[in-house]
Amino acid sequence: MKRYLPLVACAALCAPLPLLAQDTKTHPAPSEIVASAKAGEWVAIAPSDLLVMDLAPDSKGKARRVVIQLMPKPFSQGWVGNIRKLAAARWWDGTSINRAQDNYVVQWGDATEKKALPEALATMEAKDYVTPDWPSKDWIFERADGRPDAYAGAHGFYVGWPLAQGREGLWPIHCYGMVGVGRNLAPDTGTGAELYTVIGHAPRHLDRNIALVGRVIEGIEHLSSLPRGTGALGFYEKEEERVPILSVRLGDAVRDVPAFEYLDTNSASFAAYADARANRRDPFFNVPAGGADICNIPVPIRRKAK
Amino acid sequence: MKRYLPLVACAALCAPLPLLAQDTKTHPAPSEIVASAKAGEWVAIAPSDLLVMDLAPDSKGKARRVVIQLMPKPFSQGWVGNIRKLAAARWWDGTSINRAQDNYVVQWGDATEKKALPEALATMEAKDYVTPDWPSKDWIFERADGRPDAYAGAHGFYVGWPLAQGREGLWPIHCYGMVGVGRNLAPDTGTGAELYTVIGHAPRHLDRNIALVGRVIEGIEHLSSLPRGTGALGFYEKEEERVPILSVRLGDAVRDVPAFEYLDTNSASFAAYADARANRRDPFFNVPAGGADICNIPVPIRRKAK
Repeated sequence: MKRYLPLVACAALCAPLPLLAQDTKTHPAPSEIVASAKAGEWVAIAPSDLLVMDLAPDSKGKARRVVIQLMPKPFSQGWVGNIRKLAAARWWDGTSINRAQDNYVVQWGDATEKKALPEALATMEAKDYVTPDWPSKDWIFERADGRPDAYAGAHGFYVGWPLAQGREGLWPIHCYGMVGVGRNLAPDTGTGAELYTVIGHAPRHLDRNIALVGRVIEGIEHLSSLPRGTGALGFYEKEEERVPILSVRLGDAVRDVPAFEYLDTNSASFAAYADARANRRDPFFNVPAGGADICNIPVPIRRKAK
Repeated sequence: MKRYLPLVACAALCAPLPLLAQDTKTHPAPSEIVASAKAGEWVAIAPSDLLVMDLAPDSKGKARRVVIQLMPKPFSQGWVGNIRKLAAARWWDGTSINRAQDNYVVQWGDATEKKALPEALATMEAKDYVTPDWPSKDWIFERADGRPDAYAGAHGFYVGWPLAQGREGLWPIHCYGMVGVGRNLAPDTGTGAELYTVIGHAPRHLDRNIALVGRVIEGIEHLSSLPRGTGALGFYEKEEERVPILSVRLGDAVRDVPAFEYLDTNSASFAAYADARANRRDPFFNVPAGGADICNIPVPIRRKAK
């Protein structure tokens, strides 16, 4: 019984330890496929495409840093441009995390509702939620499984991001950790100053209704484990409940930000990983699912080894 | 700008306030449909089908109670029977929450790995993860949308629970808040003493591979907002990080447990709610999704009004 607890945990709820060398060699777990991907299958993320948010230290004095990767072209670029301007203007410094709604979102921005925005922010339109054309001839349609998507005609991955497709075009998907733009009622589409991240089951009914501008790639636990707000919609009712934001900077303006890389979604290892996520055959599993929700195939992202 | 923040929050990320009476009357939000459901459309949950877990108070001395509804017949009843015996034996008293893995699970049980189990616990088999026959002639197949399920031939709701269907039969679905049985490698299927709940995107690859025995119906924030463990698989590395479990009792053994009820999944209001979840037409939304993941149609559960 000595190894019972770790075994239960691993066996029950994760890629199991490679106890059965034969099986794991024949049917590696998704994590094992990622670990054995070739160096050339990883793609560097430019520091200029990172947004680094430093929160006030936690109750034990521990630093809390959240690293966000901004959405690549051609998606949501008007909002992404605004976010670059807001970060350059240090607009978020001194603002706060104002909302934590269970199984939904954590939201941050200016709780005073009075902070002036930088000039020359782009005004976006609802049509900009969808990109009409395929972004590139090297687009690959990496189907997560052989079945349709409940929220779109189809879905796939492009340069490391999950996308959905319909008659109107292509759009990013509200998976766990994705970062979106809070907005007012239509036709307002938000500036990018009010942001949220998904901390629960993918709220995909928001796809094509809100701009997605990035995803948290490190430190999401500093947001997802915050006490839930007791006010309507999970807003914090008391000012002292809000978590102060010390600074938000673009990655190339932060001296000590590590280098990150993602597994090329056009690589053989990603294809094998996606198949293994959809069909777990490693020792613990009795029944492979035969498919997977695209939000259950998170694109592997890691710190680049020095 | 005065109403900016609440409006942004509500408009961006929830059922909006009924600002446009006309629209909301024509196209009520899911929450409005639930609020207007008839009294006769709600079904009482028997206290004997509740599991009440009291954790040690939080750092501010606030009580933390988690209420779980046990899985109804004919699903997972061997494990549910074991859980009733474990609760009656007060087996969990003095155990702890031992694991919090972001976007995955929170797990509890005996961290010492030495606590003797009650006698006469049922030994279950992997075949028991699936129920071969339709549970009742009054089964309804409340399709969440007109499209297939990536993890099953089809899915629906039965007496208030999301279920999937395949050639082998029917099985419960790993949605947010569902409670499952930690286990060792096959053929061990777990006793029910080691439990976890889902705190992230539905890990449906676990369907048919682990027993689901219930769901958290109140207080999940006491689990989902716990600090994530820093050990492998989100296990807490230090004993002081574990959250003590003061007691776990069946609902009919707890004097002050409130009465709960769920919205009948065979009711007109549930059908309208499910349709509205799949096709948001309330003022905020520009584009109804045209479908929904079954885990994005949580069955409404509430405290019964006194």
